[in-house]
Amino acid sequence: MSLIVMKFGGSSVSNIDKIKIVTAKIINKKKTDKNKVVVVVSAPGDMTDELIDLANQITDKPDDREMDMLLATGEQRSVALLSMSLKANDYDAISLTGPQAGIHADMTHTKARITVIKPLKIFKELNKNKIVIVAGFQGINPNKDVTTLGRGGSDLTAVAIAAAIKADICEIYTDVDGVYTTDPRVCSRARKINCISYDEMLEMSGSGAQVMQARSIEVAKKYNVIIEVKSSFNNNPGTIINDGKKEKKMENVVITAVTFDKNQSKLSILEVNDKPGIAAKVFGILAKSQVNVDMIIQSSARERYNDISFTVSRNDLKKTVSVLSGISRELNSKGIIFDDKIAKLSIVGVGMKSHPGVAAKMFNALAKEKINIEMISTSEIKISCVIKEESVNKAVNALHRAFGLNK
Amino acid sequence: MSLIVMKFGGSSVSNIDKIKIVTAKIINKKKTDKNKVVVVVSAPGDMTDELIDLANQITDKPDDREMDMLLATGEQRSVALLSMSLKANDYDAISLTGPQAGIHADMTHTKARITVIKPLKIFKELNKNKIVIVAGFQGINPNKDVTTLGRGGSDLTAVAIAAAIKADICEIYTDVDGVYTTDPRVCSRARKINCISYDEMLEMSGSGAQVMQARSIEVAKKYNVIIEVKSSFNNNPGTIINDGKKEKKMENVVITAVTFDKNQSKLSILEVNDKPGIAAKVFGILAKSQVNVDMIIQSSARERYNDISFTVSRNDLKKTVSVLSGISRELNSKGIIFDDKIAKLSIVGVGMKSHPGVAAKMFNALAKEKINIEMISTSEIKISCVIKEESVNKAVNALHRAFGLNK
Repeated sequence: MSLIVMKFGGSSVSNIDKIKIVTAKIINKKKTDKNKVVVVVSAPGDMTDELIDLANQITDKPDDREMDMLLATGEQRSVALLSMSLKANDYDAISLTGPQAGIHADMTHTKARITVIKPLKIFKELNKNKIVIVAGFQGINPNKDVTTLGRGGSDLTAVAIAAAIKADICEIYTDVDGVYTTDPRVCSRARKINCISYDEMLEMSGSGAQVMQARSIEVAKKYNVIIEVKSSFNNNPGTIINDGKKEKKMENVVITAVTFDKNQSKLSILEVNDKPGIAAKVFGILAKSQVNVDMIIQSSARERYNDISFTVSRNDLKKTVSVLSGISRELNSKGIIFDDKIAKLSIVGVGMKSHPGVAAKMFNALAKEKINIEMISTSEIKISCVIKEESVNKAVNALHRAFGLNK
Repeated sequence: MSLIVMKFGGSSVSNIDKIKIVTAKIINKKKTDKNKVVVVVSAPGDMTDELIDLANQITDKPDDREMDMLLATGEQRSVALLSMSLKANDYDAISLTGPQAGIHADMTHTKARITVIKPLKIFKELNKNKIVIVAGFQGINPNKDVTTLGRGGSDLTAVAIAAAIKADICEIYTDVDGVYTTDPRVCSRARKINCISYDEMLEMSGSGAQVMQARSIEVAKKYNVIIEVKSSFNNNPGTIINDGKKEKKMENVVITAVTFDKNQSKLSILEVNDKPGIAAKVFGILAKSQVNVDMIIQSSARERYNDISFTVSRNDLKKTVSVLSGISRELNSKGIIFDDKIAKLSIVGVGMKSHPGVAAKMFNALAKEKINIEMISTSEIKISCVIKEESVNKAVNALHRAFGLNK
């Protein structure tokens, strides 16, 4: 017998036929070895977008608390329908809203953080041998108001519940078979990864792979929750995400995946005075404007002057330029240039820690394809380069081959 | 300054344009004398029906608890959108689900009864000068599950909150201008009633007038909540429903309204043995089968045999016949006959208590029109006759004229 958390996204419950398919999947899991099962579900299909659209018909800036009140109805619909469907198949089930499930969150509406999970009710219902269906993406704050957890919120609910009830595994059902060595739409030789560590997965999330959001992986890492990312549509084994300690083979693998992110733009502030506090000023004011800065590079090769370059997501480019223009006089720079036809290309793998020469191999592979590198940034287990967007496909295929990911 | 409860039905919040109209109505009420305002709202338009339809696509018999979980999302959507809309107009507001508003109900799902209202949160928010928007139709049961209150549930929520917070008035906004002396679609001379007593309104609800359900009026009567039924679409004064004690003019009015109910059918069990316990058996078994029996007439003119006649709603006719057939041998009757082409016609008015001859006047008016009376039943302030359905319009107009309701 295992204690299992299963998470299904909105596309898996977008209509009644799909709900019936999910029902069968849950029943199958429940039967096998008489497992105890907690299911986390998102709002059906495009419902969240529809509700946001309704709110925007009322006002440009809907009140955050009321937005959460509105959005929370989406998941509530899903859990009620799914629980009905299980009961109609003679499997006892109970639906719980986030608040009912004991998911406590902080006071930030529309992107709350989970503070603690009190799984008393979940345990109580599991002990009655019920399948417990929990609304993802939502919690209750100290005011007893409903809050929502922001992007990736349902994954987070699933992982956090798995941590709180000490589940044996947290299964994330998606429309792909698992985590891939790179995007199969770009590289036909992409392969499913059988096992990947939390750290690698975190770097992948941060560098364009859209399987799971970083915040869920962080929680999984912290509480050592074993995740399996797998398909809603077949029974193939998926990708296991864990601490990587048990994987003996891992020593031999240098690079686990090649990722890319086209939603990037690059800015440079030219010839800024090289005195303390300038970078703090620039990035402080951007943070205040809610601009998320990704790579930052400052070259101090020249005397007295620096260029500061950094990347932001393309949606933030306009705002960033306008914010920087506002303080350009204070910076006394020679000007701002930007380019939104770029992409970030990364290789990820814990193996690179102990294998020297990985960066050189990457640059070499790109050079052979005559791809120019505009920025470089490295972490312990990741190397990222900014290149022209038009070169992404060629670059991904070259790196996938160079690091032996084609098998 | 007054403390006011305003209730809007589903058709008043069926789309964003209508929500904006309701918003303006609330703001206008709030401004006047700086009133404190609690608003109760139903689910938008046909949403409840749509959700029921979704559930029925899963199974013929959806689980009741899960049905409530599903249906409750409708009102939650309405309160969030309405609160957003008020805030967008710079009026501070807060939406509350039934459970958040402190509406406690019993364990019966899909048709729960309110047990108590704990209006702490409502008062707290009113004292912050907020407009409090409460989801109608829903409450929380001792299990901390969401329940729904069944037909007329949102009116009930409004009246019960008005009672709990001792509101000065509970305004029920509808698509008509108020309560009419009879259905204007049937009688062009129908007039809006300015003031009607709880008892009269109760009899009207029970005899086909569909303005408000009896359960809400019962609560209003018990706690002496003054109700005003009025239009969502204009600012005309509506119909006040109260205990009738302040209305001096009432002495002169014999009959307040003429009502009719076409959703009726008549059954007779012929020549039943006239011995004790037969009626108890018949109506006991019908009650067990959830058949709601309305008028009952037993004539014991003949020796040893009785005919038992009664009316049930047309939807229950088939079930009633089948239940009676099952026990026909035990009854040893001569057979069952039924007729679903009938209607119940009633006159209602507290004045009839002190005015003799009201019944005679009614029968006389019908006789003049050559309308045959098939059954008669009377209460303190109501006289009902069963007549052929085809005669309803003629009968209503005749009675409306005979009792001076044309003015």
